[in-house]
Amino acid sequence: MRKSSPTKDLGTLALTEHRKLAGKISVVSKRVIRSIRDLNMYYTPGVGAVSAYVAAHKREVRNLTIKNNTVAIISDGSAVLGLGNIGPAAAIPVMEGKAMIFKDFGGIDAFPIVLGTQDVDTIVETVALISPVFGGINLEDISAPRCFEIEKRLKKILDIPVMHDDQHGTAIVVLAGLINAFTVVGKKIRKGNITILGAGAAGTAITHLLISYGIRNIVVVDRNGILNTNRKDLNKSKKELARITNRNNIEGGIGEAVHRADAVIGVSGPHILKKEHIHTMADKPIVFALANPIPEISPLAAEKAGAFIVATGRSDFKNQINNALVFPGEFRGALDNKISTIKEKMKIHAALNLARLIKNPKRSKIIPSLFDKRVVASVAKAIRSRPR
Amino acid sequence: MRKSSPTKDLGTLALTEHRKLAGKISVVSKRVIRSIRDLNMYYTPGVGAVSAYVAAHKREVRNLTIKNNTVAIISDGSAVLGLGNIGPAAAIPVMEGKAMIFKDFGGIDAFPIVLGTQDVDTIVETVALISPVFGGINLEDISAPRCFEIEKRLKKILDIPVMHDDQHGTAIVVLAGLINAFTVVGKKIRKGNITILGAGAAGTAITHLLISYGIRNIVVVDRNGILNTNRKDLNKSKKELARITNRNNIEGGIGEAVHRADAVIGVSGPHILKKEHIHTMADKPIVFALANPIPEISPLAAEKAGAFIVATGRSDFKNQINNALVFPGEFRGALDNKISTIKEKMKIHAALNLARLIKNPKRSKIIPSLFDKRVVASVAKAIRSRPR
Repeated sequence: MRKSSPTKDLGTLALTEHRKLAGKISVVSKRVIRSIRDLNMYYTPGVGAVSAYVAAHKREVRNLTIKNNTVAIISDGSAVLGLGNIGPAAAIPVMEGKAMIFKDFGGIDAFPIVLGTQDVDTIVETVALISPVFGGINLEDISAPRCFEIEKRLKKILDIPVMHDDQHGTAIVVLAGLINAFTVVGKKIRKGNITILGAGAAGTAITHLLISYGIRNIVVVDRNGILNTNRKDLNKSKKELARITNRNNIEGGIGEAVHRADAVIGVSGPHILKKEHIHTMADKPIVFALANPIPEISPLAAEKAGAFIVATGRSDFKNQINNALVFPGEFRGALDNKISTIKEKMKIHAALNLARLIKNPKRSKIIPSLFDKRVVASVAKAIRSRPR
Repeated sequence: MRKSSPTKDLGTLALTEHRKLAGKISVVSKRVIRSIRDLNMYYTPGVGAVSAYVAAHKREVRNLTIKNNTVAIISDGSAVLGLGNIGPAAAIPVMEGKAMIFKDFGGIDAFPIVLGTQDVDTIVETVALISPVFGGINLEDISAPRCFEIEKRLKKILDIPVMHDDQHGTAIVVLAGLINAFTVVGKKIRKGNITILGAGAAGTAITHLLISYGIRNIVVVDRNGILNTNRKDLNKSKKELARITNRNNIEGGIGEAVHRADAVIGVSGPHILKKEHIHTMADKPIVFALANPIPEISPLAAEKAGAFIVATGRSDFKNQINNALVFPGEFRGALDNKISTIKEKMKIHAALNLARLIKNPKRSKIIPSLFDKRVVASVAKAIRSRPR
C-alpha cells in the first residue's frame, strides 16, 4: 500500500474544502436592503446626492465609499508560491487566501484582481486605470525583476500606497527576526556579517532594508554565485545589489558566501544549504531558511549542524517568518492614516515594533505568532507620518 | 424660512448615512481564520494544491474560486443617474448600491470597478485584462453610443456573460410591463403602435428587444426629432434604429411621434411629454415615463390627461419599471448555468416570466414588486441554454 505524505493529504483536504466553498471570500452589504426606504437611501434617488457631493469634493471619496477600507490584491500569476508561472486563474486561490488574512487579521476589505497579462507596461497601466475604487494596492506573486519596475512606476503615479508584499512584507519580518536573533546571540546586528541566498524579489528587498537599517556587511548570492561588480551576467537590480553590498568584492559560491557569516538568510530554493556550510559560519550561527514549502535546509539538520537559531517560513516549526505578520497591519496603518506612500522609515519602525513584542527573545522565540493579538496594531502604528 | 424639498432631505440623510458607513459593502471570509490549521488549509501550504489543480484543469476555476459567484460592476462614470459625466470616483456610491442589490436580491458577490478612462479601446482592453477572476461583467452607467461598442467587443472576446444593464435590464422590464399593459387595455402588443422617446442606451436596447419580440410599429425620437432614414445627423447606432423602425418613414417631433400611439415609452429627460401629446394618443393610452429621478411627465398629470396606464422609474409611484427586477436574476441564472452569453431569446423569456408573475394585471399593477420573492428565480430560469 502506498503511503501518502502529510503534504499530499493536506492538499487533498484543501481541494475538497475549496470545492465545497467555491470561493473563500464573499461580498456582503453592510446594511441589508429590506424596504423601499432602504433602496431610496442606498441606491437611487438618495445615492445621487452622495455621488454629486463626491464629484464636487474629490477627497471625500475616501470618507464616503469603500475606498476608505479597500485594498486590491494584484497578481499576474508569474511567481506563485513554489509553483512558479502558473498564470492568473490558477493564482486566484492564493489571492483569496490573502484576502481572508487581510480581513480576519487587519479588518481590511481586500479584493483579488488577477491580470491576463505579464507585460510590465500593460500591468502598470491596468492597475492605474482600476485604482480609483481602492485605498491601497498590494502587489503579489509577480516575478523579479519585473516586480521592481511595476512597483516603482505605480508608486510614482498613484496617490495611494502600493506595496509588493513578497518584497517588503518579507523584508520587514526578516529584519524584526534578525534584530531579536542578534540580541539572543549577544552580537551587534549592525556589525554582523550577513549572507543572503537569493536575489529575487525577497532577497533584493531584504538587502535594501537591512542597509537602510545600518547593516554594512552583506553578501548576496544568486544561482550563479556571489553578486560582485565583476560579474557580467547581472540585470539592473542585481548590478545595484552588487554595488551596495560585498564591500570586499569577493567571488565564489555559497561556500565562500557563508564562510564566517553571523547569519544566513535563505530566500531561494529547497536544500541548497548544506551542514558543511553551517560548520564554517561564525560563532552561534543564525540560519533563516525561508524557502517555502521546502526550506534551504531542514530546521533539524540545521540545528544538528550547529545552527544556534533557526527560523523558517513554515507554520509547523518554531520561529515562523511569515509576511502575514506585516501586511494586515501595514495597510491598516496606511488606510487609517491616509498615507499615500509607505516609506523606508515606516518599514524600519514596523520591524522594530514587531521585534519589541518579544520582551525576552530566546532561541526558540524571536518573532511573535500570527495569532498574537498585538501584532497588527504594533505594525499599524509604524505606518504614519511620524511612526511610533 | 426656506423649506427644503423631500428629495433634498433624503439627500442629506443619505449623505450622513454614507459617511457613517464609509462604504456600503464589505469583503468577508466565508471561514474565519482562527488557527494555524486554518491558515495551512486556506493559505499556504494547502492552497498550493488547489492552484496547481486549477493550473492543470483550467475550467475548474469556476468551481474552486470566487469566479463561481462573482460579477464585476464596471463603470467609467460617464452617464451616472441623472448626473451625467461625473467621472469614476463619484460613480462609486452608485456602484456600491448596485452591489448591495446584487447580493441582497440575487445572492451574488459583486464588486465595483470604476475606470480612470473613457476611451473605448482602453475600456475594452482593461476589462478583458481584469476578467479572469469574474464570472460575469455588468457594465453600468456608460454613455451611448460608446456603451454599444464596448459591450459588443467585450462579448466577442470574453467567455463570461457581459451585460450593459442600462440597456438590457431596462429593456427586459419594459417589455414585461408592456406585455401586461397591453393585456389590461385589451390590445394585441405585436400590432401596437409604440413610440420611444430617447435613443440612448435604454431607448436603443428597448427598440431592439421589442422588435425581437415581434412588435412591428415602432417610432423612436431623439432630441432632434423622429429617427428616419432622411436624417443626416445620426450616428451609426441611430442610423440602424432609423432603418429598422418607422415603417412609413415619418418626420417630425414628439407631437408627430406620439400621434395615435398605443404606448409611449420615455427614457429621455424630465418634462418633455405634455398633456396635449397624450390627448392625441390612441384609445386607452399607455405611458411609461421612465426618466429618473424626474419623469417625462408626472404620473398625476399623465392620468389627468387621459393616460389609462402609467408607469415610472420611481419607487414612490405604482408600476415601478426598475431594472433591479432583472439584473440579480439574470446573473443568477448565468452563473448557475455557466452561460457564456446572454442571448436575445433568454431576455425575451425573462420578460415573459416576469410578466407572468402578475396573474391578473390591472391598471395599477402591471409589474411585480422588487420585494416579490419570486422575481429572481423567475428571471434566472430564463437564463439557460433552454430557457424555461
